[in-house]
Amino acid sequence: MPAPGLLILLSLSTVHNLMPQPAKLTFGQGKLIIDQGFHVALAGHQDARIRAAAQRLIARLTRQTGMPLPTEMEPDPTRATLTIHCERAGEAIPSLRDDESYTLEVTPAQARLDAPTSTGLLRGIETFLQLVQPDHQAFTAPALRIEDRPRFPWRGLLIDVARHWMPLGVLERNLDGMAALKLNVLHLHLTDDQGFRIQSKAFPRLHQMGSDGRYFTRQQIGHLVDYAAQRGIRILPEFEMPGHITSWFVGHPELASAPGPYQIERTWGVFNPCLDPTREETYALLDGFLGEMAKLFPDQYLHIGGDEVNGKQWSANSRIQEFVREHNLKGNAGLQAYFNRRLQAILKKHGKKMAGWDEIFHPDLPKDILVQSWRGQKSLAEAARQGYSGILSYGYYLDLIQPASAHYQVDPLDKDAAALTGEQKSRILGGEACMWSEYVSPETVDSRIWPRAAAVAERLWSPQEVKDPASMYRRLEAVSRHLDWLGLTHRSGYPLMLERLAGTSAIEPLKALAAVLEPVKGYARGRARRYTQQTPLNRLVDAVRPESDAAREFRELADRTQMRAWLTLWRDNHARLAPTLEPSFLLDEVTPLSQDLAALGAAGLEALDYLQSGGRPSDSWLQEQRALLERAQQPRAELLIMVVPPIRKLVEAAAGK
Amino acid sequence: MPAPGLLILLSLSTVHNLMPQPAKLTFGQGKLIIDQGFHVALAGHQDARIRAAAQRLIARLTRQTGMPLPTEMEPDPTRATLTIHCERAGEAIPSLRDDESYTLEVTPAQARLDAPTSTGLLRGIETFLQLVQPDHQAFTAPALRIEDRPRFPWRGLLIDVARHWMPLGVLERNLDGMAALKLNVLHLHLTDDQGFRIQSKAFPRLHQMGSDGRYFTRQQIGHLVDYAAQRGIRILPEFEMPGHITSWFVGHPELASAPGPYQIERTWGVFNPCLDPTREETYALLDGFLGEMAKLFPDQYLHIGGDEVNGKQWSANSRIQEFVREHNLKGNAGLQAYFNRRLQAILKKHGKKMAGWDEIFHPDLPKDILVQSWRGQKSLAEAARQGYSGILSYGYYLDLIQPASAHYQVDPLDKDAAALTGEQKSRILGGEACMWSEYVSPETVDSRIWPRAAAVAERLWSPQEVKDPASMYRRLEAVSRHLDWLGLTHRSGYPLMLERLAGTSAIEPLKALAAVLEPVKGYARGRARRYTQQTPLNRLVDAVRPESDAAREFRELADRTQMRAWLTLWRDNHARLAPTLEPSFLLDEVTPLSQDLAALGAAGLEALDYLQSGGRPSDSWLQEQRALLERAQQPRAELLIMVVPPIRKLVEAAAGK
Repeated sequence: MPAPGLLILLSLSTVHNLMPQPAKLTFGQGKLIIDQGFHVALAGHQDARIRAAAQRLIARLTRQTGMPLPTEMEPDPTRATLTIHCERAGEAIPSLRDDESYTLEVTPAQARLDAPTSTGLLRGIETFLQLVQPDHQAFTAPALRIEDRPRFPWRGLLIDVARHWMPLGVLERNLDGMAALKLNVLHLHLTDDQGFRIQSKAFPRLHQMGSDGRYFTRQQIGHLVDYAAQRGIRILPEFEMPGHITSWFVGHPELASAPGPYQIERTWGVFNPCLDPTREETYALLDGFLGEMAKLFPDQYLHIGGDEVNGKQWSANSRIQEFVREHNLKGNAGLQAYFNRRLQAILKKHGKKMAGWDEIFHPDLPKDILVQSWRGQKSLAEAARQGYSGILSYGYYLDLIQPASAHYQVDPLDKDAAALTGEQKSRILGGEACMWSEYVSPETVDSRIWPRAAAVAERLWSPQEVKDPASMYRRLEAVSRHLDWLGLTHRSGYPLMLERLAGTSAIEPLKALAAVLEPVKGYARGRARRYTQQTPLNRLVDAVRPESDAAREFRELADRTQMRAWLTLWRDNHARLAPTLEPSFLLDEVTPLSQDLAALGAAGLEALDYLQSGGRPSDSWLQEQRALLERAQQPRAELLIMVVPPIRKLVEAAAGK
Repeated sequence: MPAPGLLILLSLSTVHNLMPQPAKLTFGQGKLIIDQGFHVALAGHQDARIRAAAQRLIARLTRQTGMPLPTEMEPDPTRATLTIHCERAGEAIPSLRDDESYTLEVTPAQARLDAPTSTGLLRGIETFLQLVQPDHQAFTAPALRIEDRPRFPWRGLLIDVARHWMPLGVLERNLDGMAALKLNVLHLHLTDDQGFRIQSKAFPRLHQMGSDGRYFTRQQIGHLVDYAAQRGIRILPEFEMPGHITSWFVGHPELASAPGPYQIERTWGVFNPCLDPTREETYALLDGFLGEMAKLFPDQYLHIGGDEVNGKQWSANSRIQEFVREHNLKGNAGLQAYFNRRLQAILKKHGKKMAGWDEIFHPDLPKDILVQSWRGQKSLAEAARQGYSGILSYGYYLDLIQPASAHYQVDPLDKDAAALTGEQKSRILGGEACMWSEYVSPETVDSRIWPRAAAVAERLWSPQEVKDPASMYRRLEAVSRHLDWLGLTHRSGYPLMLERLAGTSAIEPLKALAAVLEPVKGYARGRARRYTQQTPLNRLVDAVRPESDAAREFRELADRTQMRAWLTLWRDNHARLAPTLEPSFLLDEVTPLSQDLAALGAAGLEALDYLQSGGRPSDSWLQEQRALLERAQQPRAELLIMVVPPIRKLVEAAAGK
């Protein structure tokens, strides 16, 4: 029988908290101690980005361990705790061509990080930081060798700053989170019906009249582009056109396909306002505006949206319809294709490749455009077959409040890609998690992105065969804590919101309820009530986590003693919670959920009693429980009780089914 | 019997969460609803500070309620939810002469805040924000009338940025916290043996060689002074001399009373290095340096420290002793008085009044100096009797980790002031809570200041007869939550530190233990081990709260069922916690405490059994429990188990004592 110390060593040598999982990992013997003698040495190629990254590494390690660490570099690599070695300068700005590979070797004597370019170093530094944990002796990193590189070169996160404005600080901390998960594209959805969120020097009425004063200045964008580049992250700007564009028309109604005036849209959905693609003035403004943006954003791609054009303004405008006929275009779809060709030429002139949603995919467009698919892998595979590059966002919509495991199983290269050649497959560049902002505010957005976006990040970085949800969830818990140190608020905001709801810090019973609730899924929130940009997002549905860990753990329980403990807690919780619910108008709507959770707890306990005694429940008992389960699975207050299915199982098992 | 709604209304009409308690408060009928129609109107005198304060009010109300609120001012005061009326411009910069009074009237129709100057408005805005709470109907503020003004004009918080460096962000968020509690002086302890924390243009070797690169730039100081002024807070800079000064000598050894070289001091205590007050070069540098600082800090006072001069360097220097004889000075104390007279003249030349610790009090100095007393009320009263102004810090040292109630009962005007005339009493201007930074880092400092400093703030603002600790603790809980919205980390940092210790987010058992622990008191930490500036402050003693709410609540419990619940939790907690303790080197030292808490829980339960059965425990049982209690009250890992006394009571009660 091994000594306890050895046991720990052995268990550590097969388990790690890394996310995304590296391409290749081999554990060695022993551990490297990280103490206050920690020193970094830089070797090989050096530049400002590497030096800044090394300083951030030290600052973060200090924060993460609570140990003051020396900030100066160790000149002698043989004496450093961690040597960072870079072969050569990489791309001047973050690019799709970046080599992100790295090798990390940790021995009990030293750690060494090697990469061809500084981008790989940035990735490897994140891996190193995730390795450092307290053990019975010290903070340590396990001895190991990692050879790592991403499966896909395009691993993005879209943040919609148009529907709900997200100030600079939100983006900065999310860039830090992205870097920690090795995501490399921040896709900024900058304009939409509900807001024009960027300053234009050439056409100031766009942001002045289309944003309620909530937009990024050119200076802020410069800062953001640099902040991202320091972390090896590209910024992809999106300017939606020809639809999703109402906010442009507040200051420039002459661009629309129907007479104004226009106002900023306050609700959600697909609206009629659409650019007039038949007037040369439209292209003159786009040429000026996109030229300005092309200089501000160094990325080779510029995203023009292009989705959900309903064509109503076009159909209703006889001059436009005449244009369609004159130019022999195939209806409104043909008109949009015409518009995109013109747009593509403008972008090309300004040195940019065009990216857009599925709808832009049209054989008239050159092969260097990029299609972002919200429709799915089939659409993506078809584009790739025809020679177009693409990325997947279908299945990665964080706003639909699906479990991490659901996103995790969506692969850009699934069976739809089976028939593609290797070259065609290589056109499928990756994917992007999308945080559409209808139902998130700066206060709640982190909790809707993290930690679930980490599951997408792993899907896009790690080998295809890395797909065990149990392992993913275990590591997700660790990475979620890790993100706390970067100032993300996905965990720290939770008690604040619950305390606001309760008006007290005595929130344990509210936490017990909230822990088994999830917001309704898909587009159900929009159907539940009329939301606008001004609707407060301060209710329990905004506070609860997108995914209930407690419900998942309960579903997986085999041990009936533990089940009883949970069920008893829930049965007794309403009595504890009721005094908090009634005095708060924000919690009033939650009362039926709390009552039902108590009833579910009781039902589960009774079912367990039947199962253990071998007795058979009466029909009336069974009817009552089924009615309860039926009611309890309905959404109320836009919330779902996530333990209904496992309790239903218990009840039906007791019924002898 | 009243309807439930009425009951709530009645109870609200006698209870509030305001802190500090206003001088005069009368509740009215009903409530003002705060919804998204909330608008502020400005009336009377207006200036930039008032407008900025109104914008901050709206932003904070948005944050606190989670409701987007309109940011534009309402031009018509009769239509506004809150009208802010200012009579006239106040002092150009925050000053001891500021009129801080205000009147706040809330009716179900409108709230109106009136103040003679903008400083009073700032105080009243904080009161208004504390009033807004969710009830069963909406966010509301209760109808009431408040006439408020401070008892003392000087209500400060000292933060020592020398021993542990505190970056700008720490000070900004603490200024926000101070403003929320109506504190009005941030005393910055900028230099000490362990660091020279401010940039000097005239003598750059001071900060360059004395700070490890950790100092405020002149630009940052300008920002901080403005940030504080916006909130009606003075900044009082302190430059310790002639002792506590080693860091100056690293770059300027010629100023010392013994030959160098000198290094930045890394440990704590009273050290020998001392300015040479006999050389004219000393005064030339002080004139230049203090002249520079006098321009940077607009406050009329400048603090020169002056405490804990041990005189060893002076006594050992024959040239200095000759000077003492030649000038007929009374030993080293006389030499320090000579130095202070010279210093006072320099300060006067630069338009500043001198402030210093008790030791500067000397009849040779003019009456406009200010004495800050760490010695106590007697010393303060004596100075006042002789015509000197003073403030109290004795009893307000937050680093000694006393309970809020201890600070709360310390009054600058206690029995020692009883014999003073009214005019003499008026020279006792207030007090300052002191956060000396030997054992705090930027990560932990907020949790050592807040919420306990709020008890000092109330003592200094509210009428003397406001002194019920139970009411104070109830409101302290509310104000502590309120401070969360300002970004203070006294609550949010707690789970992060516990998770770091445990290496997991499953920290409930660790929380249960931590909840009944407190750090050792007074100067015991320094005796427990050798601390330096580099010692990590990441152990359980750094994470636990200075004051255990759980222990206080348990001590006050009358209900034995609740007692049993607590005792059972503690008895069973070690079994749950042990798996977390062993694998973490940071928690290893905590094992004996966890074991003893379990034994204490068992002892308490057994004692309760005896008490309830009427049986008498055996002598051996009693001996065993007394030995346990003896051991458990000893500090271990620099921590105290705070439930020992109430459990001892139970055991002795069972023994029939």
